[in-house]
Amino acid sequence: MADITQSIADSVWYGWGDPALAEPLSEHALAYLTDELRLGSISPTRLPVDLSEVRLGDSRLDERRLALLRDAVGSDAVFTDRTERIRHAGGKSTVDLLRIRAGVAGEAPDAVICPETSEQVADLLRVCAAEKIAVVPFGGGTSVVGGVRATPGRFDAVVSVDLHRLNRMLSLDPVSRTAVFQAGIRGPALEAALADRGFTLGHLPQSHQEASLGGYAATRSAGQSSAGYGRSDELITALRVEAPAGTLRLGGHAPASATGPGLLDLLIGSEGVYGIITEVTVSIVPKPLEKAFGAWSFPSFEAGAEALRELIQGDEHGEVPTVCRLSDVDETDANLRLAGGRSVEYLRRYLQMRGHTHPALGIFVWEGRRGSTAARRRRSARVFRRHGGVAVTASPARAWDRGRFLAPYRRDELLTRGVLVETLETATSWANLHATHRAVHAAITGALEMNGAPCHVQTHISHLYPGGASLYYTFVAGMEGDGIEQCLRVKRAASEAIVVSGAAISHHHAIGSDHAEYLAEQIGALAEDVLGAVKYALDPVGILNPGKLIRLEDGISDATAEVPQ
Amino acid sequence: MADITQSIADSVWYGWGDPALAEPLSEHALAYLTDELRLGSISPTRLPVDLSEVRLGDSRLDERRLALLRDAVGSDAVFTDRTERIRHAGGKSTVDLLRIRAGVAGEAPDAVICPETSEQVADLLRVCAAEKIAVVPFGGGTSVVGGVRATPGRFDAVVSVDLHRLNRMLSLDPVSRTAVFQAGIRGPALEAALADRGFTLGHLPQSHQEASLGGYAATRSAGQSSAGYGRSDELITALRVEAPAGTLRLGGHAPASATGPGLLDLLIGSEGVYGIITEVTVSIVPKPLEKAFGAWSFPSFEAGAEALRELIQGDEHGEVPTVCRLSDVDETDANLRLAGGRSVEYLRRYLQMRGHTHPALGIFVWEGRRGSTAARRRRSARVFRRHGGVAVTASPARAWDRGRFLAPYRRDELLTRGVLVETLETATSWANLHATHRAVHAAITGALEMNGAPCHVQTHISHLYPGGASLYYTFVAGMEGDGIEQCLRVKRAASEAIVVSGAAISHHHAIGSDHAEYLAEQIGALAEDVLGAVKYALDPVGILNPGKLIRLEDGISDATAEVPQ
Repeated sequence: MADITQSIADSVWYGWGDPALAEPLSEHALAYLTDELRLGSISPTRLPVDLSEVRLGDSRLDERRLALLRDAVGSDAVFTDRTERIRHAGGKSTVDLLRIRAGVAGEAPDAVICPETSEQVADLLRVCAAEKIAVVPFGGGTSVVGGVRATPGRFDAVVSVDLHRLNRMLSLDPVSRTAVFQAGIRGPALEAALADRGFTLGHLPQSHQEASLGGYAATRSAGQSSAGYGRSDELITALRVEAPAGTLRLGGHAPASATGPGLLDLLIGSEGVYGIITEVTVSIVPKPLEKAFGAWSFPSFEAGAEALRELIQGDEHGEVPTVCRLSDVDETDANLRLAGGRSVEYLRRYLQMRGHTHPALGIFVWEGRRGSTAARRRRSARVFRRHGGVAVTASPARAWDRGRFLAPYRRDELLTRGVLVETLETATSWANLHATHRAVHAAITGALEMNGAPCHVQTHISHLYPGGASLYYTFVAGMEGDGIEQCLRVKRAASEAIVVSGAAISHHHAIGSDHAEYLAEQIGALAEDVLGAVKYALDPVGILNPGKLIRLEDGISDATAEVPQ
Repeated sequence: MADITQSIADSVWYGWGDPALAEPLSEHALAYLTDELRLGSISPTRLPVDLSEVRLGDSRLDERRLALLRDAVGSDAVFTDRTERIRHAGGKSTVDLLRIRAGVAGEAPDAVICPETSEQVADLLRVCAAEKIAVVPFGGGTSVVGGVRATPGRFDAVVSVDLHRLNRMLSLDPVSRTAVFQAGIRGPALEAALADRGFTLGHLPQSHQEASLGGYAATRSAGQSSAGYGRSDELITALRVEAPAGTLRLGGHAPASATGPGLLDLLIGSEGVYGIITEVTVSIVPKPLEKAFGAWSFPSFEAGAEALRELIQGDEHGEVPTVCRLSDVDETDANLRLAGGRSVEYLRRYLQMRGHTHPALGIFVWEGRRGSTAARRRRSARVFRRHGGVAVTASPARAWDRGRFLAPYRRDELLTRGVLVETLETATSWANLHATHRAVHAAITGALEMNGAPCHVQTHISHLYPGGASLYYTFVAGMEGDGIEQCLRVKRAASEAIVVSGAAISHHHAIGSDHAEYLAEQIGALAEDVLGAVKYALDPVGILNPGKLIRLEDGISDATAEVPQ
């Protein structure tokens, strides 16, 4: 099982995490990909440039301004060296990686600042507002939507504020089951601190090993175990936020109240444009003592989705598995082919016999107190069977759990092998789910095949709600040129299909700079004005995270989010 | 059992609901009260003045402005008659009732407007902004915190916008389990519309029979069955809001998403200061087919609270009873005395034998699909027993359910009998619960006994969360003079104790004008600025609900919330 308390080194500048932990693709998997995508070669020839070759302008901060920054946070907390600036140029979207691997660090910050207290963050913001220096908050740097790109906006300089030194647990209340952390703490360190006291947060996104708690709050993230533990916006009960206009302390009086508009929920998902989150209070639960796995085949994606709907709409919420992932027939087929081997052949034949000619595979994990999972599995099984589900070996679920944090490493390998791979996601109501599934699938496929190249597109449901579910897409294709325009083309096509479908432009990746124009379209001009009014109240000079989340046209910022390619 | 689809007439102007439905207090109850409060007399001599005696100024709207209002909403939708103006002067707090019963309608609107479409609301707001007429949204008129008082603020006239004609269900999605209603629909009509399709909202506050769905949204309300069905802020998935600056349509793309700050949650709880909510989308669930009742005695309030905490913090949320109400020893004692009779005597002796000399009684209701409640009751029972709970006859739970909507009628009778009665509430973390319980109890008692009069103060927990619970206080005392200053004195003392305790200034009654100063203290000046910035973006002239929720001092409004007494 994946160890959720295992801390790893900061991500390498050109890709994900600690490459020593990567598990290279098997010969079998490579052969499958070469065949599926009809690629001539899949050799690892497209290596990132050497760090020394990355093109990077000089820092635009002169000694006077650097001295002011050092006064605010200490001289050991201001970095202008090449490595740090390049490491903070962007996040971990495929486009970010393709650019930096090609040696383009067009959006590198002029300095990287590493405060270690809320007060230092406040002082830093005062200096930056006075000196008109743009500020990009940086937690784990794992944004896949351009959320941490160091765009200066209308200013002549930009700093990236890396919060990794704000990494302590401040308090834990075992009676009310809440804990207060500094916002820069990463997922594994947070889980280790809670595990020592017998608790867990249970918020495990794909990015868990690098992502920070403040990042969860800022992006309104959802972990892969959201069915069991809840989304970040459900888990966060209070925030401390340092804004240029002052300090906000939101929430914390009560688990629920009728005290006016939801200001806490206004800062959750604020993506660094309103302030820098420095402290986060979260709900915690006892560490599960038991973990059970299951995998079920369904005669169709639609049948599987109906089973999930029945589960989540049932009377007893505790009955829903902690992790629910249902692959569509394309993802199921690809996973079976990638696994390969005789046992998969037997499985296919068995499923065919049971009428599952195009199966949709669901994997499930149940976590809970000792002795609690068996009965829940039985009750889930009854629901699955009602929808034509057939239990198969639990090994796909165990394998998923073991490798749950490895996917980003595989992307690095594929990019090196000239294979474009990216993911995107949405959510919508149950009634709108399959129409959205088909429309977005068609848009991605259409955009990829425009120039005749074969591709593979697959989808799964991984977050359930009584009202609907998420849809998570992965696409792969041979790379056209440097892959950047190709990737942007697909994202555009998918985003437009999502908006036309009436689904959410993001379920858990957030808005960043990549989705900003679509957010505006979804919420309308007046809601944008409201977001802008809050921005002006908290950040009157507009230094915070230019070009992310909202496009401001009233002179606060000119949001030059268009980036050199 | 209470029929939740039973619609009743609009409340009488001097009190609650339809007086024909009231159940007068028994001789026994009256004797108990006379004794407990050491009252000389408890005769019903303090009747409200006659409607014709209510002091009411002339409408400050001239014919020109009335004509403009009629142009916006139709001539059959503008009322300036005495009865309508008096009926919309205030809400249903004890202070509101004491004033109007004494013939003081100082805050009556200059006209009452009854639009029937969102578009008419939008047109109306345009006229009022241009003509500088204050606008007070009015749903069921049940506010107990001064939320619907027709205060003109800095304007020379004010209209009350009564939304009762916006009363239709617009659509129902049985797959995603959501329904869209016009915001003026009252609780019983909403439940009747859903019941026809086999669904329920399950949101049943004390005010259910008069309150409107838009009011639930505007006040962030919680129903008495919140443990089973959730609070309004959990149940509402989308809103349409007409603001002077335009129309907002928030939510509705997905049950959850990562699309920036939570604007939906910013409008929930906005108490009419940002716009008029005209459409509300809610999550619905199948109508329960089974309802079971239980009552348990605990050796102390603390022991009972620990049992509730274990229930709500347990693995399986579906196990929590739909309704959980735990009375403290004062409320338990009063309820037993009020019930009286031989069976209560036996019960007391039995509990004494079991070591419950000062019992705290909990009443519970389990609702769900057929066959689902027996097992849940058994599992709850195991938890209750672990905390010293003793099962007693379920009749107190049945009696509560039967009379759940009657308490406001009893208040009307008590006021007529010269007994001051009012309720107030808060919520806090489990760790802070008992300190808050004691501090607020002491503050209320101290304020009531200041002039030597005996009083009775009692509390119950009625809303549970993994992180904490609500505390609901009821106090009674012989009335000093007209009772108004006495009541305000107690509310002030309690509010200050709540703020000092670090608890929420309201759990479900909202802010209105009564709590505005305490809200400011709880959230701080910068958060107030944010609320003000949103106000200015949506209502630049500041016509909406002056003096409620936020105190604006920057010229948008002078918020003259101080009222004549």
